[in-house]
Amino acid sequence: MKVTVSRKAHFNAAHRLFNNKWSQKKNDIVFGKCNNPNFHGHNYELIVSVTGKINTDTGYVIDMILLKRIIKQEVEDKLDHKNLNLDVKEFESINPTAENICIFIYNKIKPKLDPNLDLEITLYETPRNFVKYSGS
Amino acid sequence: MKVTVSRKAHFNAAHRLFNNKWSQKKNDIVFGKCNNPNFHGHNYELIVSVTGKINTDTGYVIDMILLKRIIKQEVEDKLDHKNLNLDVKEFESINPTAENICIFIYNKIKPKLDPNLDLEITLYETPRNFVKYSGS
Amino acid sequence: MKVTVSRKAHFNAAHRLFNNKWSQKKNDIVFGKCNNPNFHGHNYELIVSVTGKINTDTGYVIDMILLKRIIKQEVEDKLDHKNLNLDVKEFESINPTAENICIFIYNKIKPKLDPNLDLEITLYETPRNFVKYSGS
Amino acid sequence: MKVTVSRKAHFNAAHRLFNNKWSQKKNDIVFGKCNNPNFHGHNYELIVSVTGKINTDTGYVIDMILLKRIIKQEVEDKLDHKNLNLDVKEFESINPTAENICIFIYNKIKPKLDPNLDLEITLYETPRNFVKYSGS
Amino acid sequence: MKVTVSRKAHFNAAHRLFNNKWSQKKNDIVFGKCNNPNFHGHNYELIVSVTGKINTDTGYVIDMILLKRIIKQEVEDKLDHKNLNLDVKEFESINPTAENICIFIYNKIKPKLDPNLDLEITLYETPRNFVKYSGS
Amino acid sequence: MKVTVSRKAHFNAAHRLFNNKWSQKKNDIVFGKCNNPNFHGHNYELIVSVTGKINTDTGYVIDMILLKRIIKQEVEDKLDHKNLNLDVKEFESINPTAENICIFIYNKIKPKLDPNLDLEITLYETPRNFVKYSGS
Repeated sequence: MKVTVSRKAHFNAAHRLFNNKWSQKKNDIVFGKCNNPNFHGHNYELIVSVTGKINTDTGYVIDMILLKRIIKQEVEDKLDHKNLNLDVKEFESINPTAENICIFIYNKIKPKLDPNLDLEITLYETPRNFVKYSGS
Repeated sequence: MKVTVSRKAHFNAAHRLFNNKWSQKKNDIVFGKCNNPNFHGHNYELIVSVTGKINTDTGYVIDMILLKRIIKQEVEDKLDHKNLNLDVKEFESINPTAENICIFIYNKIKPKLDPNLDLEITLYETPRNFVKYSGS
Repeated sequence: MKVTVSRKAHFNAAHRLFNNKWSQKKNDIVFGKCNNPNFHGHNYELIVSVTGKINTDTGYVIDMILLKRIIKQEVEDKLDHKNLNLDVKEFESINPTAENICIFIYNKIKPKLDPNLDLEITLYETPRNFVKYSGS
Repeated sequence: MKVTVSRKAHFNAAHRLFNNKWSQKKNDIVFGKCNNPNFHGHNYELIVSVTGKINTDTGYVIDMILLKRIIKQEVEDKLDHKNLNLDVKEFESINPTAENICIFIYNKIKPKLDPNLDLEITLYETPRNFVKYSGS
Repeated sequence: MKVTVSRKAHFNAAHRLFNNKWSQKKNDIVFGKCNNPNFHGHNYELIVSVTGKINTDTGYVIDMILLKRIIKQEVEDKLDHKNLNLDVKEFESINPTAENICIFIYNKIKPKLDPNLDLEITLYETPRNFVKYSGS
Repeated sequence: MKVTVSRKAHFNAAHRLFNNKWSQKKNDIVFGKCNNPNFHGHNYELIVSVTGKINTDTGYVIDMILLKRIIKQEVEDKLDHKNLNLDVKEFESINPTAENICIFIYNKIKPKLDPNLDLEITLYETPRNFVKYSGS
């Protein structure tokens, strides 16, 4: 009998989309104004969803205080008020699209959870565009 | 060919989280300010999602008026403006966490639906924390 | 390793719910005020969700500009500011319930996508009622 | 010492924008697709805001149950699931723009309130367009 | 040249509405299920709006970090996860309606601000009901 | 008899807060992580509110298509997907705080409107922080 618990968080960051193996022209065609060399930015809204059995002593799947602390250490401290391309080493070689940021966050949080818990990450890049990843 | 139809509802309630087999000290450590003996409360926002085949005569999976009535009788009448610990007998022995309230709601609504329909309950305890349960 | 990307869109339309094989009386009982012969209307909010592998050159599952264009051509141009019963031939014989509009949208968008991509449509008829369809 | 209390409500309706003193061509230029002769529609979201002194016995500016009843009788019963052009006599000669519907609602609710209370109406025609009117 | 800056915050609390000078019967008539002697509760969403001139050195009307700290000390620490009737001395003799809580918050925050700054408090008791107070 | 009509819009941008007349240390104390020299960013959500008399021929205060076009030319084309500090000349010497961006937007839109219309700009820097300016 499994329940999914979700917690919202957020961070603000600058980024730029481009592929450094491509010409400037091809980057402009593919990424358009997302390829502004001076960067643009977003308020990223995050939903971290954890699925597992309820602990019958507490009535919790996971203590929300613990989950909040993991999100702070693994996501907010690493990404909030950062330039993703310049300040986060994982995005030196990987394009910081919403898809890739979502996988980055999944990979940071998953090892911090009890292995019996499943994880899904939902990341809003804007109120109109969002992505979801659950590890496979 | 199955479609999921969802309806939002809401109720307000007071509650307190604690395990009556534990010491006051242990309860404070685990539940923190959620263990205020004078209670605190929430606006619970509820999404009831029903999955099944479309009736070709009506174009409906389920008549929303019927679903609205079931939600009123099984959830709002039982939980709205209540103290979950004191006014709802199921929570005398079960901690009224979001997880357990979500299962309570599932168990109340499921028997009222056509057995061919699947049910999922999403319950927001706050705009930032929510849980989901679909019966297994 | 699959990621789901979603984009929100919207359209406004008038409609009326009824079954032309039924008597006026039966239609009134089943569809109530949704059967106003002069029509009523909604702001439909749409979420188009596409699941697939990330293209390692772009970091995209699908280019959002392309998805936006498909939504414009297949949904907004066909349904926005329309009377669904009178202006859209598919709804001459099918009741324009949220369920049926959701399937209509799925069937319009799916053939425009790479066959390796999965599609899910979420359609809000009101902020309180919504439906979801993913093709089976 | 005045406080403003607000309550949200909603209704769905069909409408068409046009000026019957103008040619079809001029109507098309000015109102574009809002002039579809078969109508389109909206979910109108309404905020009714009442300003006045607090009653020291109740702690209320106005009893929300009373305000809810006034909104039901004066707005929902008159406009919900209606065709504004065909079913509401006030809009036979007045174009049912958001501005004019907002004034209509103000004029219906104001006489039902204690004359010492001020009234402001906010009407969302879509989540992106809204209007406000407070009687002068 | 004045600008208004606003910050959102939130707290959860239990309360009960009643007038201790009235009979049980009159309280039931006036306050209905809000008068449950076992309490009910809400997620209160708060908007604190401060109006003043922009400091030309910083470009700020007020440092948001400072405003956030004042809200934490004066509102969240005093009201979050509390029973308003039992845990907050001001509401021993005043009914904790949204109107009165809004004035309470105004009176706590105003003295902590530079006297040249104007203050307005908006308090959502539910997503559908909210109140506003600006000191006069 | 005046009505206010509002339209929402949005843009994404990178920025950095600092005062170039101050030391690095003072900038860090005052602006904290908002002073990241590599920039961070936001999804700015904008509400443009125009107040005036209703044109009795159209039922409009202002044609929303016209207002949408002004917002595109004066705000989106100038600020969307830009680095405010590097790409917008007005912010070379003025700190791009939400307050100053709000005034910038007011000053761009006001001259494009009929002088009889009043203007108010609301700018959300995050879903939790927003500012408002109406010209005085």
